[in-house]
Amino acid sequence: MIKVGIIGATGYAGAEIVRLIQGHPEAEVVWYGSRSYVDEKYSSIYGNFFKLVDAKCLDDNMEELADQVDVIFTATPQGLCASLVNEDILNKVKVIDLSADFRLKDVSVYEKWYKIEHKAPQFIDEAVYGLCEINRDKIKDARLIANPGCYTTCSILTAYPLVKEGLIDPETLIVDALSGVSGAGRGAKVANLYCEVNESCKPYGVTSHRHTPEIEEQLSYAAGKDIVINFTPHLVPMNRGILATEYASLKEKSGKLPTAEDIRAAYEKYYKDEFFIRLLGDGVCPETRWVENANFVDIGFKIDERTGRVIMMGALDNMVKGAAGQAVQNMNILFGLKESTGLEFAPSFP
Amino acid sequence: MIKVGIIGATGYAGAEIVRLIQGHPEAEVVWYGSRSYVDEKYSSIYGNFFKLVDAKCLDDNMEELADQVDVIFTATPQGLCASLVNEDILNKVKVIDLSADFRLKDVSVYEKWYKIEHKAPQFIDEAVYGLCEINRDKIKDARLIANPGCYTTCSILTAYPLVKEGLIDPETLIVDALSGVSGAGRGAKVANLYCEVNESCKPYGVTSHRHTPEIEEQLSYAAGKDIVINFTPHLVPMNRGILATEYASLKEKSGKLPTAEDIRAAYEKYYKDEFFIRLLGDGVCPETRWVENANFVDIGFKIDERTGRVIMMGALDNMVKGAAGQAVQNMNILFGLKESTGLEFAPSFP
Amino acid sequence: MIKVGIIGATGYAGAEIVRLIQGHPEAEVVWYGSRSYVDEKYSSIYGNFFKLVDAKCLDDNMEELADQVDVIFTATPQGLCASLVNEDILNKVKVIDLSADFRLKDVSVYEKWYKIEHKAPQFIDEAVYGLCEINRDKIKDARLIANPGCYTTCSILTAYPLVKEGLIDPETLIVDALSGVSGAGRGAKVANLYCEVNESCKPYGVTSHRHTPEIEEQLSYAAGKDIVINFTPHLVPMNRGILATEYASLKEKSGKLPTAEDIRAAYEKYYKDEFFIRLLGDGVCPETRWVENANFVDIGFKIDERTGRVIMMGALDNMVKGAAGQAVQNMNILFGLKESTGLEFAPSFP
Amino acid sequence: MIKVGIIGATGYAGAEIVRLIQGHPEAEVVWYGSRSYVDEKYSSIYGNFFKLVDAKCLDDNMEELADQVDVIFTATPQGLCASLVNEDILNKVKVIDLSADFRLKDVSVYEKWYKIEHKAPQFIDEAVYGLCEINRDKIKDARLIANPGCYTTCSILTAYPLVKEGLIDPETLIVDALSGVSGAGRGAKVANLYCEVNESCKPYGVTSHRHTPEIEEQLSYAAGKDIVINFTPHLVPMNRGILATEYASLKEKSGKLPTAEDIRAAYEKYYKDEFFIRLLGDGVCPETRWVENANFVDIGFKIDERTGRVIMMGALDNMVKGAAGQAVQNMNILFGLKESTGLEFAPSFP
Repeated sequence: MIKVGIIGATGYAGAEIVRLIQGHPEAEVVWYGSRSYVDEKYSSIYGNFFKLVDAKCLDDNMEELADQVDVIFTATPQGLCASLVNEDILNKVKVIDLSADFRLKDVSVYEKWYKIEHKAPQFIDEAVYGLCEINRDKIKDARLIANPGCYTTCSILTAYPLVKEGLIDPETLIVDALSGVSGAGRGAKVANLYCEVNESCKPYGVTSHRHTPEIEEQLSYAAGKDIVINFTPHLVPMNRGILATEYASLKEKSGKLPTAEDIRAAYEKYYKDEFFIRLLGDGVCPETRWVENANFVDIGFKIDERTGRVIMMGALDNMVKGAAGQAVQNMNILFGLKESTGLEFAPSFP
Repeated sequence: MIKVGIIGATGYAGAEIVRLIQGHPEAEVVWYGSRSYVDEKYSSIYGNFFKLVDAKCLDDNMEELADQVDVIFTATPQGLCASLVNEDILNKVKVIDLSADFRLKDVSVYEKWYKIEHKAPQFIDEAVYGLCEINRDKIKDARLIANPGCYTTCSILTAYPLVKEGLIDPETLIVDALSGVSGAGRGAKVANLYCEVNESCKPYGVTSHRHTPEIEEQLSYAAGKDIVINFTPHLVPMNRGILATEYASLKEKSGKLPTAEDIRAAYEKYYKDEFFIRLLGDGVCPETRWVENANFVDIGFKIDERTGRVIMMGALDNMVKGAAGQAVQNMNILFGLKESTGLEFAPSFP
Repeated sequence: MIKVGIIGATGYAGAEIVRLIQGHPEAEVVWYGSRSYVDEKYSSIYGNFFKLVDAKCLDDNMEELADQVDVIFTATPQGLCASLVNEDILNKVKVIDLSADFRLKDVSVYEKWYKIEHKAPQFIDEAVYGLCEINRDKIKDARLIANPGCYTTCSILTAYPLVKEGLIDPETLIVDALSGVSGAGRGAKVANLYCEVNESCKPYGVTSHRHTPEIEEQLSYAAGKDIVINFTPHLVPMNRGILATEYASLKEKSGKLPTAEDIRAAYEKYYKDEFFIRLLGDGVCPETRWVENANFVDIGFKIDERTGRVIMMGALDNMVKGAAGQAVQNMNILFGLKESTGLEFAPSFP
Repeated sequence: MIKVGIIGATGYAGAEIVRLIQGHPEAEVVWYGSRSYVDEKYSSIYGNFFKLVDAKCLDDNMEELADQVDVIFTATPQGLCASLVNEDILNKVKVIDLSADFRLKDVSVYEKWYKIEHKAPQFIDEAVYGLCEINRDKIKDARLIANPGCYTTCSILTAYPLVKEGLIDPETLIVDALSGVSGAGRGAKVANLYCEVNESCKPYGVTSHRHTPEIEEQLSYAAGKDIVINFTPHLVPMNRGILATEYASLKEKSGKLPTAEDIRAAYEKYYKDEFFIRLLGDGVCPETRWVENANFVDIGFKIDERTGRVIMMGALDNMVKGAAGQAVQNMNILFGLKESTGLEFAPSFP
């Protein structure tokens, strides 16, 4: 059994890791780290685990934790993982960081968008961006995984094949995305109260959301050149789910615009053997209800011949493929397990 | 592998059976029966199963089905199972009926509350009421299981120990219950449109809801005498969940009223070894969020010394323990599997 | 124009007073009191008032306020109004207190249930309980109105005629109630975050909710004797609305139990000329959607001959008739206006 | 008093007209037309009007209606108004059509997108597109008003000044929009059931939604040339609200790109005296909660210097400014009333 330690186990993403590891046949959580709830029973904070988890919360001591577990998940705010991790720890355990600390290769970009100083820039180079379907091979031998953001996973996977194959002009890419409220975390803020969010939707972080440079960096690799995009997230009244609607102008190849068949062929080239990526049938649009509580990404597209654009659409569950599920998928790769171990269950509906 | 056939596979309860059997290590669905969608791909109706279920829907032919499967689940409106089942079928396969056809032992009570003629009264006697925690022993050898209703499962399990032990006066029992909207099924009715249900709650079926005689019959067995109760269901804007709040006057034993310790002892006598029943700590009330998507029933209670009443509270997921989960639990008992097989996963939150 | 000052203008109830006074032809808000937001533009806190309210928030100075306005609404937590009010203020302005400070006539009951010392017990006697339909005559000349709670208004109005006319045994009364989340206020608490409340329902304050003694006191007046009841509130995922489902045993009069006609006659005796109380047709149950955003109370009932009980049901909008609307209705009475002035608009749906 | 007749009074938009006219000081509904509910009490269908509307539903007889009222609102599916209206009717009464029948000037575009034959093309030319803030002068003397669609009103008003002033390249315009569920109407469809919509969001009508040519036609007038755009609507789980997020590349004028000040100046040029259009402060994004139940449109914008685009955002209530409210605003203009009569109330929150 893989021994799992979680730093930040009482946030939503941490609790989702607990749920997934509960159903994982080859791993078990042995450390429920939560600075705010030290010594409290974990199941008193998350009642869904009553009678299923008997442990109490422990402090966020990564040094001690490294001696007791095989893998550490850090599901904490930006900056914490970078401030705790060190060479000694990385020599002992695998670290899968669900924060943004090691996602961006350029530390100045990180410091500009996150407005904090990076405490462990020496590990940025070796950290592997844990987008499993794209970086699987690099993940295998990594010590430190930068688990991608929820918006980012959805946005990148939805556009990746078309960017990589040069079917769209990446400079025209616009990502308009919707998110459920769990993405905002469990902090007690007026803005996230039930009555403030319910029966409303809003854009936020317009032109300034921190997932922007993360999407740009990964798609720049795919494009083979540096690109900038527009990314606009919106909050919608539901617990879970990310939906990305992406627009780009089709790019001529050999004097003609790509057809729907070309687009589909590109998606299939990269995804046809991917268990967690479901390329939808012609004309079918993704809906977040069909991926709820599970690790799938549903992708569809539509060409608009009138405007010469393709509309790409992706949906995933921000808590699973957008956070904890992908983290477990990364763990599976790191430990040589079948990649879908413990993650094969169907989405729940309704 | 146990071969499973579902009649009514495209209703919400049917789809939940599909989801649960997907995660069950010793069973597989081989017949997706749905009169309305014959020949359509099942995953085109429930997109959550895209790439996971490749089958098409078949007609509701129970005779043919009986030759192909080991167990039939009927997740259909009242009357259908009774009109299809016969001796020959019951000799070949186990039948677990999620409708009310075989729940009530008195056919006249059935016909009065359901306002239809019973087509197979000859099987009523042998049918076993599939409330697993109470009737486990009888279920083992049954051919025909009457899977309990969602409100009923919650209402009965919450009150059972106190009725059985004579700690409350069963004539004073009032059950006030809340339900999520999936309990109303997938029929296209104005009353169940999003805008009609959202941002509202309402009582319905007041004094006339069909789960009333079912609760009464089972609690009458526990009380050792015939009782009548008040049962008032309410619709609340959420997908899943049943919450029952039950009121009864405490009954003196040996000249004194039962204490909280007496009440707790009664619950523990019946439930302390039950995996799926979670008796909450002192003063903790059940909440439907803590049982969502899973097979647990959470139970709590509070004594009001001022009024001499006990308030009993129970919560479950109407699609799981209130329908498909309990049906699978019954299947496990019928086939000699560990009762919790395929049902041990934690509730999901948020 | 009546000059209105609001202490606690940035809570949900305060903001609802602002909305109602905006639509009131004979009153205007001149003081937006809010200790937390002094000097901030009111419309930056409640964006619905952008371009409609230009004022900034002022401090909660009741002394100064009393010199500038005709009526003060205190929409603040328990204890604040009692700590601010004094003889001088009451001589200058009318005070309508939306907190519980002056609702209970027995100061020891207040201090027991609210666990704070009462700072102005000298005004308890003269304060009038502002349940307009019952206490209209006393309200007219009051200086200090104790505006009833949301659960209380609904619970009392729903049962009052039957208690008053002796058609039910008040000792058997059980009030089971549901509330939208706005009743919990705008404080930043984890328990009221969107993801914690959405897709769930729960009982709370079981046997101990503070509206219990308030309901008991008023119904004791109606019964002509002291009664105790069970009151169980539940939180359900919607912004607004209270639904009360109340149970009581019918009481024989002249040797026979009251009929549905008797019950209806009792309701009509008290409510037939009440604009804001809508007695529903036979068999019609109230639903919160039909009273949303407006000042109505919808009431229905059903007799259960099998159990000898009557089920009474009432619905209102907790922000309007359960708080700000009733407060404005009280203001109208105090200032000799037509009672429904500014409150005659229809509920909005959907 | 203006006598109002409504054809289609039992749809959501029809019911909203009823609500608004209830609060209108100079109009009253005298004909509640509803083919499906003839002879049923209107308030039995919309319980919010219980005791407020006593009338029964009448048939959709526009000829007879024209003799009895001053203005007819048709809140019916596409095609009905065109099939009923004639010269005689238009000579007697004003007709405000909430369907799309008279919104598009090119009948072939109508027939292509709506896939029905137009029954009254002879009135298309004279019909005035009732976007009040843009076409106010033409509306005054019209006999037939084509009341704009909900998405369209929001999309056009949000982009109009920048298109008109040439600050953006209209060929780059992409409109990504979110809608509450009431926009889908009250028809009994599985897709609009509570459990299908709740906890999910989805794009629909991608590249083919019928509001596309309507937006294009109006913005083409503003641009002074024919443009095509991408418009992608999404369904989100809330009752009311439209949010449009629009992207366009800034266009150089005199050799430099427009600044935020230029953009703001353009908005102010057209909207600064508009009561119902609220231009938000710098950096403030619209949210649908702030316009709920009222007739306002909130507009904000953000320039992204990195990509050279401006993101324009607008929010309105699809039932009010997106349908019934704008229809009443049109009525006010037609009858020479102050344009905001009966529509000045504040949005409700929460």
